[in-house]
Amino acid sequence: MRILVINPNTSEEMTRDIGEAARRYARPGTEIEAVSPEWGPRSIEGHYEDYVAAVAALEVVRDRASEFDGVVIACYGDPGLAAAREISPVPVVGIAEASMLTACTVAHSFSIVTVLERVKPMLADMVRMHGLEHRCASIRTTPLSVLDCERDPSSAGREIIVAARAAIAEDGAEAICLGCAGMGPLDKLVQEEIGIPVLDGTACAVKMLEGILDYGITTSRVAAYKEPEPKEYVNYPGPAVTA
Amino acid sequence: MRILVINPNTSEEMTRDIGEAARRYARPGTEIEAVSPEWGPRSIEGHYEDYVAAVAALEVVRDRASEFDGVVIACYGDPGLAAAREISPVPVVGIAEASMLTACTVAHSFSIVTVLERVKPMLADMVRMHGLEHRCASIRTTPLSVLDCERDPSSAGREIIVAARAAIAEDGAEAICLGCAGMGPLDKLVQEEIGIPVLDGTACAVKMLEGILDYGITTSRVAAYKEPEPKEYVNYPGPAVTA
Amino acid sequence: MRILVINPNTSEEMTRDIGEAARRYARPGTEIEAVSPEWGPRSIEGHYEDYVAAVAALEVVRDRASEFDGVVIACYGDPGLAAAREISPVPVVGIAEASMLTACTVAHSFSIVTVLERVKPMLADMVRMHGLEHRCASIRTTPLSVLDCERDPSSAGREIIVAARAAIAEDGAEAICLGCAGMGPLDKLVQEEIGIPVLDGTACAVKMLEGILDYGITTSRVAAYKEPEPKEYVNYPGPAVTA
Amino acid sequence: MRILVINPNTSEEMTRDIGEAARRYARPGTEIEAVSPEWGPRSIEGHYEDYVAAVAALEVVRDRASEFDGVVIACYGDPGLAAAREISPVPVVGIAEASMLTACTVAHSFSIVTVLERVKPMLADMVRMHGLEHRCASIRTTPLSVLDCERDPSSAGREIIVAARAAIAEDGAEAICLGCAGMGPLDKLVQEEIGIPVLDGTACAVKMLEGILDYGITTSRVAAYKEPEPKEYVNYPGPAVTA
Amino acid sequence: MRILVINPNTSEEMTRDIGEAARRYARPGTEIEAVSPEWGPRSIEGHYEDYVAAVAALEVVRDRASEFDGVVIACYGDPGLAAAREISPVPVVGIAEASMLTACTVAHSFSIVTVLERVKPMLADMVRMHGLEHRCASIRTTPLSVLDCERDPSSAGREIIVAARAAIAEDGAEAICLGCAGMGPLDKLVQEEIGIPVLDGTACAVKMLEGILDYGITTSRVAAYKEPEPKEYVNYPGPAVTA
Amino acid sequence: MRILVINPNTSEEMTRDIGEAARRYARPGTEIEAVSPEWGPRSIEGHYEDYVAAVAALEVVRDRASEFDGVVIACYGDPGLAAAREISPVPVVGIAEASMLTACTVAHSFSIVTVLERVKPMLADMVRMHGLEHRCASIRTTPLSVLDCERDPSSAGREIIVAARAAIAEDGAEAICLGCAGMGPLDKLVQEEIGIPVLDGTACAVKMLEGILDYGITTSRVAAYKEPEPKEYVNYPGPAVTA
Repeated sequence: MRILVINPNTSEEMTRDIGEAARRYARPGTEIEAVSPEWGPRSIEGHYEDYVAAVAALEVVRDRASEFDGVVIACYGDPGLAAAREISPVPVVGIAEASMLTACTVAHSFSIVTVLERVKPMLADMVRMHGLEHRCASIRTTPLSVLDCERDPSSAGREIIVAARAAIAEDGAEAICLGCAGMGPLDKLVQEEIGIPVLDGTACAVKMLEGILDYGITTSRVAAYKEPEPKEYVNYPGPAVTA
Repeated sequence: MRILVINPNTSEEMTRDIGEAARRYARPGTEIEAVSPEWGPRSIEGHYEDYVAAVAALEVVRDRASEFDGVVIACYGDPGLAAAREISPVPVVGIAEASMLTACTVAHSFSIVTVLERVKPMLADMVRMHGLEHRCASIRTTPLSVLDCERDPSSAGREIIVAARAAIAEDGAEAICLGCAGMGPLDKLVQEEIGIPVLDGTACAVKMLEGILDYGITTSRVAAYKEPEPKEYVNYPGPAVTA
Repeated sequence: MRILVINPNTSEEMTRDIGEAARRYARPGTEIEAVSPEWGPRSIEGHYEDYVAAVAALEVVRDRASEFDGVVIACYGDPGLAAAREISPVPVVGIAEASMLTACTVAHSFSIVTVLERVKPMLADMVRMHGLEHRCASIRTTPLSVLDCERDPSSAGREIIVAARAAIAEDGAEAICLGCAGMGPLDKLVQEEIGIPVLDGTACAVKMLEGILDYGITTSRVAAYKEPEPKEYVNYPGPAVTA
Repeated sequence: MRILVINPNTSEEMTRDIGEAARRYARPGTEIEAVSPEWGPRSIEGHYEDYVAAVAALEVVRDRASEFDGVVIACYGDPGLAAAREISPVPVVGIAEASMLTACTVAHSFSIVTVLERVKPMLADMVRMHGLEHRCASIRTTPLSVLDCERDPSSAGREIIVAARAAIAEDGAEAICLGCAGMGPLDKLVQEEIGIPVLDGTACAVKMLEGILDYGITTSRVAAYKEPEPKEYVNYPGPAVTA
Repeated sequence: MRILVINPNTSEEMTRDIGEAARRYARPGTEIEAVSPEWGPRSIEGHYEDYVAAVAALEVVRDRASEFDGVVIACYGDPGLAAAREISPVPVVGIAEASMLTACTVAHSFSIVTVLERVKPMLADMVRMHGLEHRCASIRTTPLSVLDCERDPSSAGREIIVAARAAIAEDGAEAICLGCAGMGPLDKLVQEEIGIPVLDGTACAVKMLEGILDYGITTSRVAAYKEPEPKEYVNYPGPAVTA
Repeated sequence: MRILVINPNTSEEMTRDIGEAARRYARPGTEIEAVSPEWGPRSIEGHYEDYVAAVAALEVVRDRASEFDGVVIACYGDPGLAAAREISPVPVVGIAEASMLTACTVAHSFSIVTVLERVKPMLADMVRMHGLEHRCASIRTTPLSVLDCERDPSSAGREIIVAARAAIAEDGAEAICLGCAGMGPLDKLVQEEIGIPVLDGTACAVKMLEGILDYGITTSRVAAYKEPEPKEYVNYPGPAVTA
């Protein structure tokens, strides 16, 4: 089984770490390739970057998805997820959805601990878009930028633990979803400190993909994720789909 | 990895079929044991039966869960799921939640196709209890009783296909969750006919358990699923938990 | 008019107190019999105990409901309420629903003041199951166990008052539902202190039952609360219903 | 116990019938006085009439409520209910809320069967304002005006039965709330035909008031229904409250 | 273009100020006439006053709307708005709805800063009635009465700023809707202090009316706002509509 | 006042028509420039095209917004709206939000009539993202592609009328939002046929922008639409914002 993990952030170190995180819990027979798009922002901390990085990531999906059995979009806003499902011949899972759906099996309510305050409304919309607002106790932010998680993991871990403890004590969180792919490698460290499940979306997405691939199901093409209509593009290659 | 699949219905044939369905998509190293409680209704088609069967199933959890790595509650109302999580030392997944959470990764909206009209309000409550009402396009019923699915699978398949087609055409369903453990073995047959993902909750639950066990997480014990308080029971053994 | 008040907790002293609370506001012609099941946990403070006690209470419904004009389930999670409606020939009211529905006639928003922190998610689900989440300002917990309310009522009263005042000041509560049958006898004491309506669910349930019995209506049997399908039980007597 | 039933419609015949409906299920010791305001529309079938009739009814509350133990607002939009609670020294119940809250004790979901199509959005808002939208299966209209119910009850009964049957078959209704005070006297006739509980809000409101008066609670004055601030009125008497 | 601005409060000074606020941002060709009803409370701070003032304002709509191209109801509960739409031959906009709808174009979430604590539940209902609860971050109250805003604007400004800052810091507010017509003239002063959009509903309503009048649309008469049915009134003139 | 209308579809004829629609109801002093991005799909009928066209449109925002007083995103999914708000120095309005917010001032509930069935889930998400689901009666589709509206307007008009009539009769629609920029020029034609307000989002967006510009407010920069963090881009110019 071959899984393509796309980090929409163009930060090589982060992509390498995400790849390692993906491999850590993958099954022996699962092969992971972690890549970044060839263009776009170093990190994603707002709507503009989310859109630009989504389209850059969609080019990777368009060009490479057919070589794999499944695709992971490894950025916690799930940028371009629905679009990727339209153009990918294989199933696609976002790390935000994967962490939240997994949290639902071990906790009554989860909180998301994420980066800068500014992403809170964007993530609140994302939770609502997935229809999971009744399971989400809160979104807690930290002073961390996306790249801070890479630069100084032990300091990042401390900030995450502070926010997670507040989520448990004040919001009723029973599991913590790490709200940034760059926080993923800290999952077990944080979990040991706080004593409730801590979920790295990349790990969760890989496990969910293994599961749905074993089960032999794939993206439904009947409505929301129907293959794009055949059409002309101006100055842009368009999708690789074969209508 | 050892998984205990509990069919809360006391129908041996159904339990055997559920066990087979569980094994069909389990990984090579996953060992499945499918059991029924020693007492209770042959089948579950209402709240009363759901409660009685839940307590019977909880006795199985209490007595046997510690021998396994994970437990599946294999009845589509997820009877006793939250209680099982309190008393089980290992993670527990319900087949309704598993099928719905899995559906969320391949479809924008899913419908549940289930047995008799009478279970519709009960399942609607169940969907709402899991907080997934915004992803559930509809609950479609059939003239089938739970045991009809066992007795005459090909006829059952036809009824399911009729209801699923209506769900696609009228409700916008993009995936179908089979709303009865006894319907599970019909998943691929129905899927081939209707052309969208068809999910057997037992298969989904096994895959999700494999995933969360690989990832090393388990039920959060901080709030909703805290181990029961130590207390006296009258004329009843009580839970096996060690406070 | 004869009303059967079932305390699903197997604590005789509590059952006696609940019976007295029920009688206190019952009309002269209303006869109350308060009973506990013959087996089960002394008190209910979690999902497991809720399920076990529900089935024990359902045996009382099955065996005795036909001798009465109405039944009250006197535990604040309304354990087994929907199931009781299926098998009881007479109307059944839960004390949680009764207190909340009554609160809606005297307050824009109510809060529930209940026992240990651990029951909060369970009660939040219960409020949502009754569809009353838009009227519920908050669920406030206390350090009290169910049996603490019996053991030391004056200390319990003080804890309830502290929590109720916080609910008024911080959550906008305009009425307080006492979230444990054992707190019921403290209703007027707390009400005098805090100055807003304080509702004992047992009293409310008795009054609602008197009302619906006077009016000549009973449980709808057309869908959610249809009598169970006739079916075989293994090693269990099953319901007393005559199909 | 003395209850003032205010029909905000200025139709004497209707007021007399509502009074009879109120008395039919009142307890022996409950005295009912049914009145209409001295001015306003003959019937209420829209927002404008609702507002005008509300203020006319509020004058009755202001002038007469203190002579009674409780007040019923007997028009299915509950016109002026919150305002009445502010100025009445005794509890006030609306017939829409009373019928819906009562329906919740005998049915999982209820439908409202009401008059002309045009009131549907107004009643949908009313249901939402009471926070009961999750229990309301549908609002079904008929070709009946409010006064048609008075003029030709047997024809009105037939229209109600047609709408109620559609609500059961297509919307999952398990109880019917009669969505007009003028339909109230038809409750048992309709119930016998359709076989599920049929609720006249006036009867329900009287029973609820008897209950809360027995229990010794009244409108919460801490927030939403606080007595009006003392203030100057221009060319209008203002409320009779004593600040 | 002629716009009638009705201040349902019978406070001449306030009406004059509201008129000025309306004119401040009106287009050169827009003529504003600001009026109060001839009777009713000096100010509106509760449900009772809201109803009385609504009917007084509806008399102004009935008598004068046909002389204008549009009508503004200038009190932050939008009293009588739906009724005004039924009887007005020209479009009607409420200042609460106008401020909230406008806020949606410049902010992800808005908070309402309003007068006394007691109006909070009433405004929460109003937000819900407009269906905008998912955009409303919070309702913040101040110690200000409606008339305090007139009497001492600079002190009122200070209180509003305190509440607005709390809304930004604690509730995630991105725009502030001034929750009282009397606060309107303070919009730019507060905005300069707090640095996010501050919206006076009167200004917003005038701008929205200019827009919809330019566009040539008016109130839909097909359902909720259908002209009242022709009917008899007792001791009251009734609407001026020509059926 | 200068307004930039960006048609994210790269169809010149459509862009010209949208420009005309925008000018039709613009005030005399309002200057409209309608443009398409230099690259991207001819039309947008799915998530993939929505993302690609959003980024193409964001380049136009980045490069040209500072020359204008306001920007309209003229495609009915509001592609890239939140991102545009982050990088535009002037306010940005989407045509979907504009049509829905405007509909709220003339109708209790609106329906969207749009193109192909496949966009329904995408638009349902969009409505939910704007938090307007309680005002949206339904989304009705037609057999029309986006470009069909351009190619054969009279045939398109007929399809829209059929769908709108169904929305009125079956869903309770009181206003129709034309769910495609290409349908905009048909607004008055359809309105005359169906007799309820019909809204072209482009016209609505221009009117709303004129209003908020007159009023002197602009996008809130405190949270959701904060200017992007300064950061490195790989092989992409990034935003023009001056941090």
